[in-house]
Amino acid sequence: MYSLSELQKSVADYMNGLDVDGNPHSLYEPIAYSLAAGGKRLRPMLTVLACNIFSDNALSALPAAAALEVFHTFTLLHDDVMDNATVRRGKPSVFGKWGTNAALLSGDAMMIYSYKLLQQTPVEYLPAVLGCFNYTAMTVCEGQQVDMEFEKRSDVTLEEYMSMIDKKTAALLAGATMIGAIQGGADTLSRQHLFSFATELGLAFQLQDDLLDAYGTEAQLGKPIGGDILEGKKSFLMITAFARADAHTRKQLHALLDNHTMAPQEKIDAVLAIYSSLGIREIAEREIGLHFSKAMDALSSLEVDSERVEPLRTLAQSLLGRNK
Amino acid sequence: MYSLSELQKSVADYMNGLDVDGNPHSLYEPIAYSLAAGGKRLRPMLTVLACNIFSDNALSALPAAAALEVFHTFTLLHDDVMDNATVRRGKPSVFGKWGTNAALLSGDAMMIYSYKLLQQTPVEYLPAVLGCFNYTAMTVCEGQQVDMEFEKRSDVTLEEYMSMIDKKTAALLAGATMIGAIQGGADTLSRQHLFSFATELGLAFQLQDDLLDAYGTEAQLGKPIGGDILEGKKSFLMITAFARADAHTRKQLHALLDNHTMAPQEKIDAVLAIYSSLGIREIAEREIGLHFSKAMDALSSLEVDSERVEPLRTLAQSLLGRNK
Repeated sequence: MYSLSELQKSVADYMNGLDVDGNPHSLYEPIAYSLAAGGKRLRPMLTVLACNIFSDNALSALPAAAALEVFHTFTLLHDDVMDNATVRRGKPSVFGKWGTNAALLSGDAMMIYSYKLLQQTPVEYLPAVLGCFNYTAMTVCEGQQVDMEFEKRSDVTLEEYMSMIDKKTAALLAGATMIGAIQGGADTLSRQHLFSFATELGLAFQLQDDLLDAYGTEAQLGKPIGGDILEGKKSFLMITAFARADAHTRKQLHALLDNHTMAPQEKIDAVLAIYSSLGIREIAEREIGLHFSKAMDALSSLEVDSERVEPLRTLAQSLLGRNK
Repeated sequence: MYSLSELQKSVADYMNGLDVDGNPHSLYEPIAYSLAAGGKRLRPMLTVLACNIFSDNALSALPAAAALEVFHTFTLLHDDVMDNATVRRGKPSVFGKWGTNAALLSGDAMMIYSYKLLQQTPVEYLPAVLGCFNYTAMTVCEGQQVDMEFEKRSDVTLEEYMSMIDKKTAALLAGATMIGAIQGGADTLSRQHLFSFATELGLAFQLQDDLLDAYGTEAQLGKPIGGDILEGKKSFLMITAFARADAHTRKQLHALLDNHTMAPQEKIDAVLAIYSSLGIREIAEREIGLHFSKAMDALSSLEVDSERVEPLRTLAQSLLGRNK
């Protein structure tokens, strides 16, 4: 069994050691560029940490773990084309730097590259791992499609929103965790607990991202505060505000979102004032806490020595800023 | 062992029987639409025909065969975005009908769907089949990238062009054939012969497509004659013409390609007149014949009863219009 920091080092080394190049170089350069941008490596960490619960050979899950990170990064390349987003994590996105065709084609190559990594999975686990990976990948596409359709609608319900982030965000965390569990040789019941854990963690994680957009710092969020408000995004906060507001306040909110001449900061402040009057921040915090508790409960339901679960628990806590 | 027509029916039935739907329907609709457009189903036919040489269980290769057709159709969705092509086989392309984002995201889902089909490969062949599929898919992306870069260049050599179509077109036919051979249990030497066969067939097939653009009928080509000339595409014919022309004729050709006010038919006729003066048609026909002969020789090198190879040979002959 490995410690959290040992696995963090192994994942970082493995990702940094990936040799992404070929002919023509121009196809591979955007892949290497976007993978080098780094980030928390959350998905591969979930894979090796889940494997680590059941097996002392968690490093055998590194190729599949990397496949999940490569797949995640591929989705960002294509999402940036769809969102017309030229900046990603404070740097030019592949779309911004090389244009639509490069983001499209290098993105495709990147998805194929994730399957090349998956190919290194020990053969006894390959059918189950491939099946889980495919299911997960398709679910992420479904979530992205639903999210795009939300942009054209003003009547998105909270239930629809939770179902969308379940597919777009939580499913990949759940898939990453399941693939680690499979390679660790986990039994069916343990896999179910881990699936619940990662799904709830993913929901809490996305809701926290929504919350930080309004109440975080630019350093925490990695982009300017209030972006969701300015884009009129149907976030958890906005949908809840519309659901809680009386007719007058709802009208005010609509007028704010439709106002394209107002100064950005003024608009953000006006929306935050409405959020404040409706207690939206507290509702969001309560919801995050609820999903986080469910995630922790699912971990506690695993019938293994609690010390084997500790590294995964610690990662989840630090992800949500709930370190002991 | 199955006859050619039996396998054609099995492939058609299998493709028509694919249940491509899910939630949201809008993600899956473009996939079903583009798969229904049909075509020759050349790639899945190569898979089952190659399997049929070595095994009486060629139908077990149907899911992988379908995976190759789905992957091929996926590449068309994304190519149409990159080429800004709103029409495909006389009907609106997915890009033309639903726009960039749908072609992009449903294309992604389609690639994942091809891996879902692959997942049904008998487990003993799965690692080899997945490896071959990944290698092939990446090669096709490389070919597309090189092709896009050719558009910005006027000095593409014939050698570079042949290397590009080897990757963009021939590699997928070779991969389809190899995956069938693997599932038929073919030995290494037989696989090598079949790889040569399909590669040479693919080169002949692409060169014939180039030839038909100038000398075919609209019915054979599936689009108006002369499109490559009007787009200034570096086809086999154009590259060979530039290589064979004297300085004066080369200047004439450049002037024609740079002329954007000339009537389309006039431009096509003028280029064809130059082709004719240089004997380009005959050179192309000789080159096609050469690759086709190599393909047939590779088939003859297989150490199996010749009757087992007959269905594949017949398909190859009819593809190139060389039926006995």
